[in-house]
Formats: sequence, C-alpha cells, structure tokens
Amino acid sequence: MIIELKSDVNDAQANKLAKELLAIYMNRGDQKLIVTSSKMKGVESHYEGMIEAIHVFDSDIQLASRDFSKSTIPVKVGEVTVGGNSSNTLLIAGPCSVESEEQIEDTARFMKSIGITALRGGCFKPRTSPYSFQGLGEEGLKLMASMREKYNLSIVTEIRDATHADMVIDYTDVIQIGAKTMYDHGVLRKAGKSQKPVLLKRGFGTTLQEFVQAAEFILSGGNPNVMLCERGIRTFETKTRFTLDLCGVAYLKEYTNLPVILDPSHAMGHAYGVPDVTRACTAMGIDGLIIEVHPDPSVARSDAAQQLDFSTFGALYNSLKPIAEAVGRKIV
Amino acid sequence: MIIELKSDVNDAQANKLAKELLAIYMNRGDQKLIVTSSKMKGVESHYEGMIEAIHVFDSDIQLASRDFSKSTIPVKVGEVTVGGNSSNTLLIAGPCSVESEEQIEDTARFMKSIGITALRGGCFKPRTSPYSFQGLGEEGLKLMASMREKYNLSIVTEIRDATHADMVIDYTDVIQIGAKTMYDHGVLRKAGKSQKPVLLKRGFGTTLQEFVQAAEFILSGGNPNVMLCERGIRTFETKTRFTLDLCGVAYLKEYTNLPVILDPSHAMGHAYGVPDVTRACTAMGIDGLIIEVHPDPSVARSDAAQQLDFSTFGALYNSLKPIAEAVGRKIV
Amino acid sequence: MIIELKSDVNDAQANKLAKELLAIYMNRGDQKLIVTSSKMKGVESHYEGMIEAIHVFDSDIQLASRDFSKSTIPVKVGEVTVGGNSSNTLLIAGPCSVESEEQIEDTARFMKSIGITALRGGCFKPRTSPYSFQGLGEEGLKLMASMREKYNLSIVTEIRDATHADMVIDYTDVIQIGAKTMYDHGVLRKAGKSQKPVLLKRGFGTTLQEFVQAAEFILSGGNPNVMLCERGIRTFETKTRFTLDLCGVAYLKEYTNLPVILDPSHAMGHAYGVPDVTRACTAMGIDGLIIEVHPDPSVARSDAAQQLDFSTFGALYNSLKPIAEAVGRKIV
Amino acid sequence: MIIELKSDVNDAQANKLAKELLAIYMNRGDQKLIVTSSKMKGVESHYEGMIEAIHVFDSDIQLASRDFSKSTIPVKVGEVTVGGNSSNTLLIAGPCSVESEEQIEDTARFMKSIGITALRGGCFKPRTSPYSFQGLGEEGLKLMASMREKYNLSIVTEIRDATHADMVIDYTDVIQIGAKTMYDHGVLRKAGKSQKPVLLKRGFGTTLQEFVQAAEFILSGGNPNVMLCERGIRTFETKTRFTLDLCGVAYLKEYTNLPVILDPSHAMGHAYGVPDVTRACTAMGIDGLIIEVHPDPSVARSDAAQQLDFSTFGALYNSLKPIAEAVGRKIV
Repeated sequence: MIIELKSDVNDAQANKLAKELLAIYMNRGDQKLIVTSSKMKGVESHYEGMIEAIHVFDSDIQLASRDFSKSTIPVKVGEVTVGGNSSNTLLIAGPCSVESEEQIEDTARFMKSIGITALRGGCFKPRTSPYSFQGLGEEGLKLMASMREKYNLSIVTEIRDATHADMVIDYTDVIQIGAKTMYDHGVLRKAGKSQKPVLLKRGFGTTLQEFVQAAEFILSGGNPNVMLCERGIRTFETKTRFTLDLCGVAYLKEYTNLPVILDPSHAMGHAYGVPDVTRACTAMGIDGLIIEVHPDPSVARSDAAQQLDFSTFGALYNSLKPIAEAVGRKIV
Repeated sequence: MIIELKSDVNDAQANKLAKELLAIYMNRGDQKLIVTSSKMKGVESHYEGMIEAIHVFDSDIQLASRDFSKSTIPVKVGEVTVGGNSSNTLLIAGPCSVESEEQIEDTARFMKSIGITALRGGCFKPRTSPYSFQGLGEEGLKLMASMREKYNLSIVTEIRDATHADMVIDYTDVIQIGAKTMYDHGVLRKAGKSQKPVLLKRGFGTTLQEFVQAAEFILSGGNPNVMLCERGIRTFETKTRFTLDLCGVAYLKEYTNLPVILDPSHAMGHAYGVPDVTRACTAMGIDGLIIEVHPDPSVARSDAAQQLDFSTFGALYNSLKPIAEAVGRKIV
Repeated sequence: MIIELKSDVNDAQANKLAKELLAIYMNRGDQKLIVTSSKMKGVESHYEGMIEAIHVFDSDIQLASRDFSKSTIPVKVGEVTVGGNSSNTLLIAGPCSVESEEQIEDTARFMKSIGITALRGGCFKPRTSPYSFQGLGEEGLKLMASMREKYNLSIVTEIRDATHADMVIDYTDVIQIGAKTMYDHGVLRKAGKSQKPVLLKRGFGTTLQEFVQAAEFILSGGNPNVMLCERGIRTFETKTRFTLDLCGVAYLKEYTNLPVILDPSHAMGHAYGVPDVTRACTAMGIDGLIIEVHPDPSVARSDAAQQLDFSTFGALYNSLKPIAEAVGRKIV
Repeated sequence: MIIELKSDVNDAQANKLAKELLAIYMNRGDQKLIVTSSKMKGVESHYEGMIEAIHVFDSDIQLASRDFSKSTIPVKVGEVTVGGNSSNTLLIAGPCSVESEEQIEDTARFMKSIGITALRGGCFKPRTSPYSFQGLGEEGLKLMASMREKYNLSIVTEIRDATHADMVIDYTDVIQIGAKTMYDHGVLRKAGKSQKPVLLKRGFGTTLQEFVQAAEFILSGGNPNVMLCERGIRTFETKTRFTLDLCGVAYLKEYTNLPVILDPSHAMGHAYGVPDVTRACTAMGIDGLIIEVHPDPSVARSDAAQQLDFSTFGALYNSLKPIAEAVGRKIV
C-alpha cells in the first residue's frame, strides 16, 4: 500500500507513522510517500487527517506499478531522456570488458563517429570461475572515465559486489547491476542512495515478480531512476546461451512504469543471431538496447562468441532506424 | 549421412543398399537419396560407383540442415510461396477452435476483406482436461472446407492424434501438427506420406534438436513441404503462458533450411501482449505468422484470454507492413 | 464436480442428465457418477431427487483427487496389488528395448531368479530420430508374451501411438504410456476403454496439474486402474538427463488417490547415479519402481548409458529391502 | 590445471611462477599448489624442476574435483566431522529467521533435548521484497551466539551481502552462503579468507558446473572447508516451491570431493512434503541435512508454510535413523 501524505505533514510525523506501520517513508520533494507491505489494505481512521490518497496493490510491486504511475517514468542518461514523453530507444554499446586503453579507445572513437552516446564496458567482472579474467578493476574505471571526457559519452559499468559499489557509483554515469548481482541487498541499497540512473538486469533464474521487486529496493531506497533490463533467462534450451523473454517484456510494459532496456547479446550468446534478435527487440517499442561490440571479438577476454565487430554493428545500427520509426520510436 | 545416388541407380539397387546400411531410401524425382544415421561417416569403397555425393553431419538434423540445402526450401500454401526465392511473410489467422458456422464464417469474411489468404481453425482440440470442449470434429472440418470454397482461403487445421489423421489430411490445405502431438510417430508418418504442406509446432518442452528431428520424420517419410513453427516454450516464468524463443528462431534460421513460422498468441497467452510480440516476430525476418482471432474473444470456448478481436487484429495487420518492409519482407 | 447418482437412477436417465450438463456419465457398477467441468459447482434443484452426493473441486483433478477417494486406489499387476491396503513397492525391471530373443530371455530368467515379478521391455520405441533403432514392433510383443508364459512374469510394454494401441493392449499386462505419448488423446481414450492397469508417465515438460488431468482422460473413459509414473522433468541442468521431481511426488501422494511409480533410470540417464537415486525413491514410500536393466548395457540399442547390468541391479535390489522396511513398505 | 610444487620451492618462487601463468598460488601447509585455468594443459619444460605433479582437468572444477582428491574431504562442524572417514549425516535444524529471544531459545532447548548439535537461524534475510521482515541483524547474531554458549550448539547463520560479511563470519560457527548470494564475489572471497566451515547453497537458477565453480572461489581463496548444499532449483513446476535435484546430488557425489548437505525445506516449500523428501535425501547417503523448524510455524515471520513444528520434526528425526543405517550412515 502506498500512502500519499498531505503536504503539511512533516518528516517527524511521517517517520512516526511509518514506524507504526512497519513501513518505509520517502520524501520525494513533490511527494511524501509511505510504502507498507502490500498485504496492508488500509489504515485506521484516526490517521486519515494526514492522508491525501491511498493506493492498494495485490503484490509488492508498488512504486514500480503502472497502477501507481500511469506513464513510464523519465530517466536521464547524459543528455538523453528515456521513458517519460520521449519516444527514444537508447542504444548503449561497447565491449563486455574493458581490456586495455587501446581497446576501449578504439571502441569509444568508433561509437562517437556513428552517433552512439552511451558506452558500456565492464571493469569488475562477475565471472563464474576464479581462474578466468576478473576485469581491470579501478584501472578500467579510470579508462572509462577518460573516454567520457574525451568523447562526451555516457559511461555504463557494472557493480559486481558491495565491496566496490561506492567506487563504481562514483565513476559511472549509469549504475549497471548485473544478472548475478540483482539479489545483492548491499548493492541495491547503495544504488538506492544514489540519484544516478540504474540499469537493473533481471537474473537468469528470476521471475518477473522478483525482478521488479528488486527494483522496489532501489526505488524505496530513494532513487527513482531505475531502468529494467531483460537479458535472457535460463531454460532447458542450450543451443543458445539464454532465452530472451519478450513475452515478459510485454508484461513489464503493461504492468510497470519503468523504462525497459533489452540486452540481445547475452541472451543469444552467438554473434550470428544478435542482429535478428536486436531487430525483434526494437520492434517491441522499448526504451533502450545494450549491445556488446569489440574491435576484434576473436581475442576478447570474456564473451568472445557474442560480441559484434564494428562493421557488423554499424550495419545493424543502420537497419534499426526504419524499424524504430515503424513503431513510433527513434534510435538515439 | 546423406548419400546422393547417381541417376542411373534404380530403385531396386537403392533399396538394397539402404537395407544394408539400415537406412532410408527416398526417390525425390530429381534426387535419389539414402539417409543413414548421422553416426555413419562414410561407405565402403565398393559402393562408390553408385554414389554422386556424400553429405556428413554431426547430428541427426540432416535433410533439414542448411549444410544440405543452402537456401530455405520453398513451400506453397495455396497460391502463396513461403521460403525459396520469395520474401513473403505469410499471415495465417483465425480462431483457436471452430465453434459454429456463424463464428467461422464471420471470421472468414473478415479475413478475406482485409486480404488474408490463410484461415486457421481447430476441430480436434488437444485439451488437457477431458471435461472441457473437445472441438467439433468432422463437422468443424466441413465448415472449414466450405470457407475455402466460399472465400478462396487456404485452410489450416490440426491433427490431434493418429485416429483421425487421414480425415484431417483429406480436408485441410495445411496439416497442422501441434505442440502436444509433435512426438506422435503415427501422425508424423502419415504427414510424411502426404504432399500437403505441414506446419509442425515445437513442443513446449522440446529442444531445438528434437524439434528439427521431428521434422526429419516427415521429410524422410517423403514429404519435403515442412514448415517449423515456434510457439513458446515452458519456463519458470508464469506471468505469461509460455516464453517465445526468438533466440531459438535465430538458430533455426542459421542452421536449418525449412521456413519458420511464429505463433505469438500461444506464447503470450494474453491478448494485451500479442501486438507487440507479433511486431517483434515480424522484425526477425521470418516466413510466416499464425495469430488467433475471434469475433468475440470473451465467449470463445478455448483460449479466450489470448485471441484478438477483429479491430485489434486489423490494426496489428496494418502495423506489420512497414516493419516487414524494413527487413526486406512482404506480409501476404 | 462429481455427482454420485442414487442407485435407482437408470442409465438412460443418467445419460440424459450428463448430456444436459455437457458431462461424462460413468457406470462403475457400485457407483454411478456424472463428472462435469470443475467450473460447475452445483445443480439446479429439480435434479436433486436423483442425487446421492456431490463433490466439488477447484480444478479438473476430480476422479483422481484425494478429496474424492481418501485412500489410494488399489491396482492389481498380475498377482500383486499396489495401493489400496497393501504396503507394496512393486519393482518392475527389464531392458529399455526388446532387442532379441536371447537378450529378453536372459533378462527374464535373471529377474525370475531373484524374485522380480514384472518385466519391462519396449517394442515400439518413441525415438526422437527417424535414423535410429525404432523397436522390434509386434515381433517384440510376441517375445514379451512368451516370457510371460515361460517365467510367469507380468509384462509391461509401451504404446507409442494410436496406430498400434489395440495391438499393444492385447499383448501386454500393463499398458505403459510414455512421456512423449501422454498427451495423445487417441492412446488415452483407448487405454480408458480397457480394464488393464495403465502406467502413465509424466511428460518431461508437463506440469503436475496436466499430468493428473491426463489420468482423468483414462479414468473418465472407464478404466479406474491408473498408476502415475514420475520419470524426471526437463530443466536447465544438463549434467543429468532429466531432473527427478520428488517434491512433485510428495504433491501427488498428498493430493491424488492414484498409486505412484518412480523411474530413476530415465531421470538420471547415467548408470552411476541410478542406485543412489533409486534408494532415495524407495525412502519416499512409493508404490513402485521401474528400472532399466540389460544383460550388457554397452551394446544396448537404446539408452545404453543408463541401463544397469545384472550384478549392479542385484546388489541394488538387496539394498532396497531395509530402506523399504524402514518406511513401512515391502519390495515385491 | 593444478601444479603440485616440490616442498623445497619457496613462496617467492611460487608466487613468481603463479604470476607468469596468470594463476593462483596456495600454500596449504602440507601442499603447495598453483591453480591455473583448466584451459592450460601443461607447462614449459624449464619449470619442471619445481614440479612434483600436475593434474589436468576438462573444466574449471579443479580443487573440488574427485580427480584431484579421491575421497570426500573432511570438514569439522563443532565436534562433528562430515566427509572424510566419517559416515556421519549431520542434521542442522532451526528456524528460518531468528525472531526473538524466546523463539530461538525454545528451539535451541528443544534441539538440545533430542540430540541435535547444530542450530540454524537467519539474521540477515535476503528477502525478495523490501516491504517484508528483513531479519534482526546483529541483535539476532548475539542471540545465536548466546544459544551456542548456553546449549553447546554449533550455530549456522547466513551472510546476505558483503557489507556485513565480516560481522557474520565473526559470530558464526558455519558460514552459510545462500542461494541468492552464491555469485557474490565479495562474500565468496571473504569466506575464502576464513578457515571456518562454509555451507554454500546452490542458486535456484545455477547449473552444477557454476555451483562447484563458486566453491572453487572459496577453495582457491584458501579455505578448504566447503560443503555443497542442494536446496532445489527453479523449474516450470509451481505446485512446489522448487524442485530438489537429487540426480544432481548423484553427480556431485560422483565428480566432486566436497561433502554434500541437502535442504528439503526450501525445495518443497510446504511442510506436508518435508518428511517424505527428507527421508529420500537420507537414503541418498549424504553428509548432512538442514531443516527449518519453528516453535509455531503459523506465526513465523518468513517461510511460514514450510517450517516444521517440534512434534513433526521429532517424529521425522526418529524415522531417519533406520534409513541412514540402511545406507551405512549415522544421523548426528
């Protein structure tokens, strides 16, 4: 249940009420909200004087629910708005991992040259084996930051765990929380205390309900700038790396108010299928795409099979424009 | 292994060789083929005089493999070709079940009026409960056949099991084999003896490997006119009915030579998401779509939640044209 | 809803009522039942004179529900009863496929020698590839029948599809319906018309709800002798062939009244794990086990990896007895 | 590849070699090991003088592989050894969450009275919703520690994320890493630096390969005391909370050298099925069980549906003894 408080209720009163209801109080400036468990369906009558409106929900998808906000919330990534009144589909691209200055600068330069505004690149890699490349760490973050300065790109990089969350939040423009990290309360709470946009990926074993509830941790922590990213779920099919859940995307568009970003690279896991699947994603009418691109995928230190080379990515980028247009969207 | 025989080898010789190799002999008119298990990688030297060429495979996807036929095979549905040199995306539409003459005629008339050429409608329904509507049976087939006569539509209807397979094959233009029937050897073998086009759906628990191998039953039985239909797989996600596997579609396009048809209705299971998902499918550059449409979904006797009404379907149909065009395809 | 009719209602009256309710009428001798859709929760008052009792259900699991019959129904396999008042755990064993007279006779003789009473052996194999061994067909059925005569064993063999269902039902003692066939209405209806015990396997992509509903086809067709067989479901894990669902077995024991048989061989898919998993199954307190055993697994024409040799099986059999005893059961 | 170094190689030399091979050096006292990626299959000849033995692997399951250590490694939990030469099945029991002093003390007293030696109880709960009970935090840890003092029980409690990992490690006897935390590098690395036993749970969307690789993070970090815990994976079946993967357990027993603990409570998710499934687990011949027990499950603040009351748990405990004995094990 979300209780909108009257504007004359002060923080002390609000906090007292929240405590009584075992609930979370959020002062959003223009809105003062108390969010309780969704099992609570109303308040005792003596509180009514403090209350502007009450929103009741059938699950703990509350702040993210389209029943709470009819329109998709706007999130600013650099100078680009996704969601809100925009009809933008933001294209984020770059390598899986930052590997060297040359590699990331080649990529940044190419992205800039074709009009891309947001550069991805992982520095703390959540690898499944301790014996493979773990990322460049802070050295990678510095390289990403210098690409932002040199090429005026928004940078998107991933927090692996809470031990370096503050550092990543400090350097990055978009806080990426990956599929393996999305249940990490330490990370979710830190992202909730920032105001930077968050790209929250769905875990590959995560239901849509749990996924959006993870977003609620960030939203209720005080950061309204959350984008949901579907990147493929794990199924019995192994010819492809994961199974991109576009039916689930239709659900997210219908029932939540957060922008939706799609990651066809991790879902497909093989470069040959990325262009077709990316075109499919674009035709869904979504708010963004994140694609893995590498100057020379054959030597990439992680995700070599699925990264596109510049030429394939350039051709793909051009092919997306008329599709986006056909569904009333614009690739930015 | 597929052995292409020299044209002067006669059927008796070919059958003798097939028997020795525990293999299947197919006289395709222009080609005489022997198909062995893929575990066999060559033949003894004394057979070489009979052999034009040998194709070796790493799995039992053989006749359907793109390594055997570089281009997608053409299949004719009425006057429309899918696959081959065409760039057609065939739109098949109609109700889940034929329920009454009025219902199917309303639908047929509407489809004709907007330019649709292929009408779906189930008569033998593979329901999961014995206590729900099981379809009109032969009465339904007669209604479908009369729609073909009156409106010049190709009709697409489903075989539920081998007990009525001959009857359905006799009436229909496209033999539909559903997700629950695709392992049914009785049905696959009967479809293999026909020359009518077959729409073979992937089971919801079926790997891509098994799915294409089911097509091999039909192909090796003598019927080259097989279309593969992805309609959603069963995963842990239950907000939607199934999970449409577009990564799997990318695999099928890359590795098989059969036309690919997509069924967004069964995957999504809820009308609200069908338009977006259908647009995504179209942008994949596929050979066809099959969509459930009903004059009044709220009273449908099966799949009520997922069928589109005429107005929604008409709008969707129009929105598909520019997307198809953007990927070099034409909706027919 | 199940309506128990008064004993003086005759078949004509009962059939008339069933027709009015779009329901199924069953004269079980001691009980006259009408089974409607579970959506129906009551009847109009003028029928009340015909009605002894009404059972209302929340899903189409009705005849199989423990709310309808408090105790597990008894099913006789040869001279052995499973379910009912028995505390038997019936051990069915034998090869995946009947391959030759020598192979099946070696097996039958061994089984007899250690006290096994039920012999499995497939004759019509639902293979996923047309290029692998498809079973001996009727020749295999004859071999199985002759093992019954010679060694006084109950024989258990599988129907692949409706085209040979009558033949298999004629030869066999237990009608096995496999994981790929369990949605086959042609087969389910034929099994429903027999009185022979049916071993119905769960499909690997089938929910428990659908599985028990498939049993309802047989039960409502007139055959009360249905045993449910869990044999592993398909999940994302590929180190083992399938994932045996023992939590699901706990559900079946709690909510249905049908005996439960477990198939660890197909679930595990590798001989090394079959003994441990079989012991686990036994400790669940279930009504039967079906295990694949072959005189020489290394040369088996199907499922070679998972079949046990005689020595391993003999040792396993002995190890099961104290476990069964610990849970109040007896291996028979 | 694991390189066993000769005993006269000193740490400086070993570290130098490890750096050259991009590998991890571990001085285990009795063994000096260098662990490289499993892609590496040998070393250049000039290193040979330093090398005692080389172990090559086909995947990054290396330190945990039964090819590296033939017998299950021993892990001490309080005074109880699991694995090694013991034939113990350790029974860990207690509530999902520590809720109050009275609740945890009632439980501890009961456990002590029936002979249980290890008490579980969560203090930092990885809930999926921010609006439900998040655990008592350090207050809970203090209560657990006081139960250890008063009742001489080993305490088992969970790290939720890296922000409080040091605190939990400090208080607890067994470091529990839950299904949602098992990819958390921050937590895995901290557990690797401790010498306390670790109970590592498999994620519900995690393959066996990834699961054991997560253990490799801890092992290669320097802590050899890792126990693997299977607690159910997420599948399409929703009648039960998860699907316990006993086939996977057979794999872990065959291919890894780590003790295996099973958690039937989370897998089943409903108290009615926990006893049967626990008995099944016991018959697998495993090293431990972890069961949720609460003085009054109906008022539990988390996992209310699946916790057993004292009376049910006591009866279950007694029923396990003869099953364990039947498979050569002893419940401790």
